[in-house]
Amino acid sequence: MTLSDDAARTYELDRRHVFHSWSAQAHLTPTVLTAAEGCYVWDGEGNRLLDFSSMMVNTNIGHQHPKVVAAIQAQAATMCTVAPHFANDARSEAARLISERTPGELDTIFFTNGGADAVEHAVRMARLHTGRYKVLTRYRSYHGGTETAVNLTGDPRRWPNDHGNAGVVHFFGPFLYRSEFHAHDEAQETERALSHLARTIEMEGPATIAAIVLESVPGTAGIMVPTPEYLRGVRELCDRYGIVFIADEVMSGFGRTGKWFAIQHFDVVPDLLTFAKGVNSGYVPLGGVAISPAIAASFAQRPYPGGLTYSGHPLAAAAAVATITAMHEEGIVDNAFDIGARVLGPGLRDLAARHPSIGEVRGIGVFWAIELVRDRVTREPLAPYGGTSPAMTELVAACRAGGVLPFVNFNRLHVVPPCVISEAEAKEGLAILDQALNVADAHTVDAR
Amino acid sequence: MTLSDDAARTYELDRRHVFHSWSAQAHLTPTVLTAAEGCYVWDGEGNRLLDFSSMMVNTNIGHQHPKVVAAIQAQAATMCTVAPHFANDARSEAARLISERTPGELDTIFFTNGGADAVEHAVRMARLHTGRYKVLTRYRSYHGGTETAVNLTGDPRRWPNDHGNAGVVHFFGPFLYRSEFHAHDEAQETERALSHLARTIEMEGPATIAAIVLESVPGTAGIMVPTPEYLRGVRELCDRYGIVFIADEVMSGFGRTGKWFAIQHFDVVPDLLTFAKGVNSGYVPLGGVAISPAIAASFAQRPYPGGLTYSGHPLAAAAAVATITAMHEEGIVDNAFDIGARVLGPGLRDLAARHPSIGEVRGIGVFWAIELVRDRVTREPLAPYGGTSPAMTELVAACRAGGVLPFVNFNRLHVVPPCVISEAEAKEGLAILDQALNVADAHTVDAR
Repeated sequence: MTLSDDAARTYELDRRHVFHSWSAQAHLTPTVLTAAEGCYVWDGEGNRLLDFSSMMVNTNIGHQHPKVVAAIQAQAATMCTVAPHFANDARSEAARLISERTPGELDTIFFTNGGADAVEHAVRMARLHTGRYKVLTRYRSYHGGTETAVNLTGDPRRWPNDHGNAGVVHFFGPFLYRSEFHAHDEAQETERALSHLARTIEMEGPATIAAIVLESVPGTAGIMVPTPEYLRGVRELCDRYGIVFIADEVMSGFGRTGKWFAIQHFDVVPDLLTFAKGVNSGYVPLGGVAISPAIAASFAQRPYPGGLTYSGHPLAAAAAVATITAMHEEGIVDNAFDIGARVLGPGLRDLAARHPSIGEVRGIGVFWAIELVRDRVTREPLAPYGGTSPAMTELVAACRAGGVLPFVNFNRLHVVPPCVISEAEAKEGLAILDQALNVADAHTVDAR
Repeated sequence: MTLSDDAARTYELDRRHVFHSWSAQAHLTPTVLTAAEGCYVWDGEGNRLLDFSSMMVNTNIGHQHPKVVAAIQAQAATMCTVAPHFANDARSEAARLISERTPGELDTIFFTNGGADAVEHAVRMARLHTGRYKVLTRYRSYHGGTETAVNLTGDPRRWPNDHGNAGVVHFFGPFLYRSEFHAHDEAQETERALSHLARTIEMEGPATIAAIVLESVPGTAGIMVPTPEYLRGVRELCDRYGIVFIADEVMSGFGRTGKWFAIQHFDVVPDLLTFAKGVNSGYVPLGGVAISPAIAASFAQRPYPGGLTYSGHPLAAAAAVATITAMHEEGIVDNAFDIGARVLGPGLRDLAARHPSIGEVRGIGVFWAIELVRDRVTREPLAPYGGTSPAMTELVAACRAGGVLPFVNFNRLHVVPPCVISEAEAKEGLAILDQALNVADAHTVDAR
């Protein structure tokens, strides 16, 4: 349990000079990562860990995919950067490949550096297209860290940034396990959630609302897969009132759910679709907005008042071209669906049957949440909303000790490995979780 | 004048699928760029162009610097991406090298994807550190494209995004050539501009103001180099009222002015310093905020409520390490200063003496503006504020035809080549400008 000399220097410099996201800086003891391959990473003590987090749910193609690495190296040798007002082969080809995969006619691509600015620009397009300002989003959502994006976000990270002037109104979305609508089944939850959204629109004033922004499947907030009827209902409300439907696919896109985009499970076409992460697995920072013909036409004659130096960056675009091509050639999206249906889904349900700390498992593809509770009857979470608890801290430590890197949010453990994960790797991870969950079980009412 | 087959395909796909920054999409005819090296780029027709724009004033180290290309390739082979909550050697080393160069004790680095989100996060830090909301920035400034950043911006690109609720107040900064203060010399302009800022603070209420954000040398807005007394005066006002001084060095940093940071010309230390572009010449998207000990301490015990998936991205950080190291080893920052003092400054003043369309030249290092006017007496600009004109369009076409890529904003042509530019290359570019400026001269009152 000692760091290599190099890792010790990395750690020491990190603690002296690096300011970390979303953290109280004094309390950090970041793990040094020194290597990665496929579904595994190695820490500074030489331990191999199975990456059930895909880092921040972005390495859909796994770590260090040789075709993507080679494409980055080749593009670096040719042309690392170009200004956005020129045209460049890597950018053109990336736009073509993304357009081929987006639903409907979302065939015009505005490239950004990541998910947050993709969402910022999508909202701007919607506001200028409609001439309206207000944006509706759901509680239990995450849309990014910049000012508009974090104000769209429906989790506690918004609070310190919420000055009441962002033009955002939050509503409740469908989430049967913790239903806001006192519903007993998915059909009722869907119907009541749609009715709640319709009522919210009426009360806010339809003519004041530029856009509804929804993660097609909410990610960090809990992987609540909606019914097709819900998203179709949202589409109908948007059509009825001239509201722009923005699907945030930053986390759910590019194979995560076993389709190129999660919304393709529901046969719904949004007006704008934001992406990042999986588009090139985060090998180079990249995000973007796929734009409908009607909204693109809004900016045919008047300038779009937004942009950035690295829009359509060649190195990022070349990584996207290689990633999408490899995912296509190697059937990686289908693998994600198959692993979810055959291995992760049944395996997690089996864990739920045996561990009293599991209140619910839910998900699709390689996008799963384990909802941990102190009491299955009251559904009291194992950590409070917006916080953590000794029980969750112990659980995470047990996962790490067992050799798995989980993704954790409040009382939930997410199983979100790369889309390339094999059946054997998935089962290896589930077996480690099975052991670790005993730690959580000890904190339940059943254990008293 | 025909595109190669590859370039034709790039162009055709661009026009079908790519949405461009800051533009009316129907009127674009983007030049295809196919290759780049040092201070030159090649277009899709095989023409070589001297890059007097550094793309978007970002390729400070020139195009395709072999040490930076090699570093990107090596890092890609090792570890392309890592989540921000881990520690990583490339990120630690980049933070160390940046901290060594920032003024004062700005030794804690928060990495972002670019300049806009660097500014967004700097403003957030200032607001939470002070508990105040309002931010003061100057007219004639640019701070980025996301919602808060574009609202800080003091140019017309803000207007379509300005809903009056961003908490930003604009004031006039020093700009002797178009003085707002009826000043006759730099000393008077400085004194009156400081008095105007002090009065604005008093009228807005000092206790309501979180931050003053200033480009150390305003870039796109016109490269108005301030006096040391002005920035020292701003520092004193900030100290007097407990206001955070944010120096935006996104464009002016990393050698552009002939120092690592422009503010080092003035012997002033800000509380926060934002950077991007030159940090790794934009070879991989990267930006960041350098943070004072006092502000870092604000987030020692309470979490900083902001973050992003690609914060401290290893590929971007490795490019920064190689860029900073090469700039140091090869004396590139000194070269920028020297070329400005010995070649560009005298050369541009010589052009001004001979071309009646030049109202003023100003700048430092490889950061120069040519202010073009129809009439030297009235100083009527050759294009209106916020717009363009046939004269400017013809001038740009003449530059391109002569083999130079300029950077253009309204009535100004900026000479902002890479910091590595040689004396011979600078003189080659000046000679081409000399010819092209005849086109502008034909639009002056003198030519009538």
